[in-house]
Amino acid sequence: MMGKVTVAIMMGSESDAPIMAEAAKLLKEFGVSCEMRVLSAHRTPKHVVEYVEQCTNSGTQVFICGAGGSAALAGVVSAHTTVPVLGVPIDSMGLGGLDALLSTVQMPPGVPVGGVAIGKPGARNAALLSIRILALTDKDLQAKLTDYSQKQAEKILKTKVDV
Amino acid sequence: MMGKVTVAIMMGSESDAPIMAEAAKLLKEFGVSCEMRVLSAHRTPKHVVEYVEQCTNSGTQVFICGAGGSAALAGVVSAHTTVPVLGVPIDSMGLGGLDALLSTVQMPPGVPVGGVAIGKPGARNAALLSIRILALTDKDLQAKLTDYSQKQAEKILKTKVDV
Amino acid sequence: MMGKVTVAIMMGSESDAPIMAEAAKLLKEFGVSCEMRVLSAHRTPKHVVEYVEQCTNSGTQVFICGAGGSAALAGVVSAHTTVPVLGVPIDSMGLGGLDALLSTVQMPPGVPVGGVAIGKPGARNAALLSIRILALTDKDLQAKLTDYSQKQAEKILKTKVDV
Amino acid sequence: MMGKVTVAIMMGSESDAPIMAEAAKLLKEFGVSCEMRVLSAHRTPKHVVEYVEQCTNSGTQVFICGAGGSAALAGVVSAHTTVPVLGVPIDSMGLGGLDALLSTVQMPPGVPVGGVAIGKPGARNAALLSIRILALTDKDLQAKLTDYSQKQAEKILKTKVDV
Amino acid sequence: MMGKVTVAIMMGSESDAPIMAEAAKLLKEFGVSCEMRVLSAHRTPKHVVEYVEQCTNSGTQVFICGAGGSAALAGVVSAHTTVPVLGVPIDSMGLGGLDALLSTVQMPPGVPVGGVAIGKPGARNAALLSIRILALTDKDLQAKLTDYSQKQAEKILKTKVDV
Amino acid sequence: MMGKVTVAIMMGSESDAPIMAEAAKLLKEFGVSCEMRVLSAHRTPKHVVEYVEQCTNSGTQVFICGAGGSAALAGVVSAHTTVPVLGVPIDSMGLGGLDALLSTVQMPPGVPVGGVAIGKPGARNAALLSIRILALTDKDLQAKLTDYSQKQAEKILKTKVDV
Amino acid sequence: MMGKVTVAIMMGSESDAPIMAEAAKLLKEFGVSCEMRVLSAHRTPKHVVEYVEQCTNSGTQVFICGAGGSAALAGVVSAHTTVPVLGVPIDSMGLGGLDALLSTVQMPPGVPVGGVAIGKPGARNAALLSIRILALTDKDLQAKLTDYSQKQAEKILKTKVDV
Amino acid sequence: MMGKVTVAIMMGSESDAPIMAEAAKLLKEFGVSCEMRVLSAHRTPKHVVEYVEQCTNSGTQVFICGAGGSAALAGVVSAHTTVPVLGVPIDSMGLGGLDALLSTVQMPPGVPVGGVAIGKPGARNAALLSIRILALTDKDLQAKLTDYSQKQAEKILKTKVDV
Repeated sequence: MMGKVTVAIMMGSESDAPIMAEAAKLLKEFGVSCEMRVLSAHRTPKHVVEYVEQCTNSGTQVFICGAGGSAALAGVVSAHTTVPVLGVPIDSMGLGGLDALLSTVQMPPGVPVGGVAIGKPGARNAALLSIRILALTDKDLQAKLTDYSQKQAEKILKTKVDV
Repeated sequence: MMGKVTVAIMMGSESDAPIMAEAAKLLKEFGVSCEMRVLSAHRTPKHVVEYVEQCTNSGTQVFICGAGGSAALAGVVSAHTTVPVLGVPIDSMGLGGLDALLSTVQMPPGVPVGGVAIGKPGARNAALLSIRILALTDKDLQAKLTDYSQKQAEKILKTKVDV
Repeated sequence: MMGKVTVAIMMGSESDAPIMAEAAKLLKEFGVSCEMRVLSAHRTPKHVVEYVEQCTNSGTQVFICGAGGSAALAGVVSAHTTVPVLGVPIDSMGLGGLDALLSTVQMPPGVPVGGVAIGKPGARNAALLSIRILALTDKDLQAKLTDYSQKQAEKILKTKVDV
Repeated sequence: MMGKVTVAIMMGSESDAPIMAEAAKLLKEFGVSCEMRVLSAHRTPKHVVEYVEQCTNSGTQVFICGAGGSAALAGVVSAHTTVPVLGVPIDSMGLGGLDALLSTVQMPPGVPVGGVAIGKPGARNAALLSIRILALTDKDLQAKLTDYSQKQAEKILKTKVDV
Repeated sequence: MMGKVTVAIMMGSESDAPIMAEAAKLLKEFGVSCEMRVLSAHRTPKHVVEYVEQCTNSGTQVFICGAGGSAALAGVVSAHTTVPVLGVPIDSMGLGGLDALLSTVQMPPGVPVGGVAIGKPGARNAALLSIRILALTDKDLQAKLTDYSQKQAEKILKTKVDV
Repeated sequence: MMGKVTVAIMMGSESDAPIMAEAAKLLKEFGVSCEMRVLSAHRTPKHVVEYVEQCTNSGTQVFICGAGGSAALAGVVSAHTTVPVLGVPIDSMGLGGLDALLSTVQMPPGVPVGGVAIGKPGARNAALLSIRILALTDKDLQAKLTDYSQKQAEKILKTKVDV
Repeated sequence: MMGKVTVAIMMGSESDAPIMAEAAKLLKEFGVSCEMRVLSAHRTPKHVVEYVEQCTNSGTQVFICGAGGSAALAGVVSAHTTVPVLGVPIDSMGLGGLDALLSTVQMPPGVPVGGVAIGKPGARNAALLSIRILALTDKDLQAKLTDYSQKQAEKILKTKVDV
Repeated sequence: MMGKVTVAIMMGSESDAPIMAEAAKLLKEFGVSCEMRVLSAHRTPKHVVEYVEQCTNSGTQVFICGAGGSAALAGVVSAHTTVPVLGVPIDSMGLGGLDALLSTVQMPPGVPVGGVAIGKPGARNAALLSIRILALTDKDLQAKLTDYSQKQAEKILKTKVDV
């Protein structure tokens, strides 16, 4: 970790990178510093804890965690920080990602994770939700968010479809 | 709405109140001002928009939205604000709440909702995630969160179970 | 919107157009005027309301709404009109379209949506159900429907299959 | 069948009556003539056909069909009429009604059914969707629908909830 | 229908033919006369009834019905005969065939259908179950079945697999 | 086993007896000899094989097997006989019986099982499907089946329901 | 921890104790030393690691971990030991335990968990599987297992059921 | 079977071999003797029993059983041995492998199976869980397991991902 990482993007496996890169791209577009790291709740548990504590202490504001199957990463990260944690379920072990979705969202009371949609749409929304959190105390980001929503709406409104 | 509402708790139906009260109770325990409102994305759509805009303009920091079935409330709220929105799926129309869970979480890219677990555990975690968001800029809340986690852990560690 | 649109076909995303075009094609085959519009309950919520009110006021008889994931469009349209609304679930975010199906169909009492099958078969049936509604007061359409059913049956009856 | 039945409410089993009565009650509240009949697509198939043809010929405008398990009734009714058919899935054979929901909604192209939610909320919405269909050519009904929506909204807006 | 059809193989759509041909091939291998017919419970309901009654009267011993989505065919056939009916769910409308499986199997008491697996394995087993039924009173078929099972076992026992 | 058992009803656990008794009652009503036995594919595998072979050799015509969870009984019975085997899924381990349903129905090609609905409706239909099989060569049973269907229809037709 | 714990039974919440006690009772019946501990992967993560390392170092042979919802416990335990880990999914957050089942079983390659059935049957089988593992090097246990199976079979064989 | 087979890998069909070979490869990497055999609980039931008894008597320490659909193999193997049995669900009959997963895991109390993930990740983990079992009394294997975990962690820690 070099310099401050406002949003830490973690994922359980290298194969999750194309999904999670959607979050990183959007954060960069908004000028929010972020870092992508492959760290597994199951295969590198101690490094997960170390990294989460290091980020938390150095001022990371949001964790975005992507994982497939028994997607424990977001929950484990949340267990070691009091910073907001968002979870992106990834379809990597059959069942269309339902396993990762339920593992991410059905957290016991006391250790919150904010779950988003399966795959790329979820990764993008995790970035946007992070930006909304940061924008609570950053007027520039707030303005960019409003601008982003308007452009998004305009793009849709210009779309012409026909048979 | 009287005075500032830091966290606005919305729900689609009066029958959701016992679930969503879990969020309100926890927020009060942390000294965070909140308000519970029954407003339906489907039955009072214009009042939802009005209330969301009013809250957003007066400084609400997080929306927590509980709904069952085709749980559109969190998504609709998110569509009208750039403040973070959390969604609590409620089991009210059979299928164990799977309908509300998927409706809450599977949002299209561009309009984020942070989904939590079905029912009371989810309501409590939505409150805690709100507090984590607020604590990013509030050292007192941060200290209370740390304290809460420790007490929670201590309570578990004291538990004795036997056959 | 130019001229009267008897059936308004709305969809949440441009990528839904190949599905929803099946509805438009069938309506045109029956000589029913229709229009396809991309408008999102989440990304262009105010334009959805405007369009629905405009259509309703100018005599639109049926809305057909296609959406994937947390498919809120049909429900939101129904919330702003008293004209019949049909929903076509689209498989766009994994889970085989189960998310969109449940979001479309599990509406709370008071705001009805008539849900059809996932994808193209559903889009075609939404068109046919619209035509059935219009045919209640249009003898020509009624005759065309009867003719359509007969041709459909004849086509099946002519089919020869063998090992 | 005595006199004209504007909306024919059919159900596969006597045990479905408490669910389907919700539709009948709402139709009566709106002054729409209706009739409830127990007729099974599987156990009285010829009487289903007879009844559907008789209703269709005598001017029935909408069929509402409730059934559980392999809920074939709505589809079979739709196969014998060109009048709009709505299907109410009923949870009667375990699985929370998912079996009835899929059987009702996943119709092949050519034979449309408008599916609503599982159980009582669905029955009520099937009645409301029928009324919307009838209201297309009945200004009184249209006015009652608008009034119903307003009262429904007012009731929600008056609801006070607290911890 | 020409000559006696011991096993009538019906399917709801021409696209089901490659699946259902697996049943026909196996029946022919056992020397059991069969016929494949495309007839839809929804699109040609009266011809289904006619065909089922004609087959039943002329001595058909088993019906095998394949259908996808809201797979009503087997149930409707069973409603019009007292001959055994087997249902083959086909994956044709998303959801991996779960819709057809539940529609086929979850029949109400009084109208039995014997459901088999989704797709080709199911079609083959429907043929074998038909042959078991016929073999109850046909020693030749019984001998062929025993022989078939032995060959099947031998084929498996000869299989060598290695890394 | 005393005397000839035309239909052998097997179940994996004593707790399945109230479900499977529905099959026995119906068979007795039709005068078909049957026997209920608790034998588990997992806990008494050798006795299952023995019993199946003994029944098969002494002229049993149909096996009806009820089991919950990983419902292997019907498949294992089918593996040891060439007589028709029907499987009744029982909801005994959570998940509403979906586990037992899939275990019963999703048999590999070569070893057929005819699956029926979960629980009592399935048990009754398994009995009726057995009777249909036996009736292929028993005119008395055939007449009773026709009579049964008529009485069933009459009972439904007499049902009056009202709000 | 006092004395050697051959099988360590862990659970995420006190409310899981009635389920997990089934495992403890069976282990005691076989004379295998065990200990039940409430420790949460999410709420007491460091104590989980400590306890697992302590058990592993002092000779624990099997871990049995019960948890509901996003059931991370078994996976987290497996990440910190090379001793066999078994997971018992518990139905504690709706969805019939499907969430816990998928979270327990769908582990990524490299960190194995042996999953058993949801709830009490699973807890009992986790105990038996532990005993099978221990019995590989303990002839007494092996004899007890054989005896247990025989008694289990005898009990089933003595069961009489009738209509 | 030639020589001692420490881990017996069984599968229901030749088509399962590419999945199950993942287990064999990993076992060989660890120097554990194993053998892959195609034997079906349904198509070669007696050979399954024979093979299981032969393996058990000659000192096999773990059975790994892969099967799809109604995956009865692991349960049937467990019924005939007191050696630990692990089950690998395989996605071979639609539904994403959910059928095989539930059939493998939802075993009745008394006959344990340790279930792992669907497909290749599960096969690899079944091998690792077998090695963990064997390592309880084999220090060399124990050292290799520790080494394997470390290399696995190092590989992950070296992974660099970026947008």
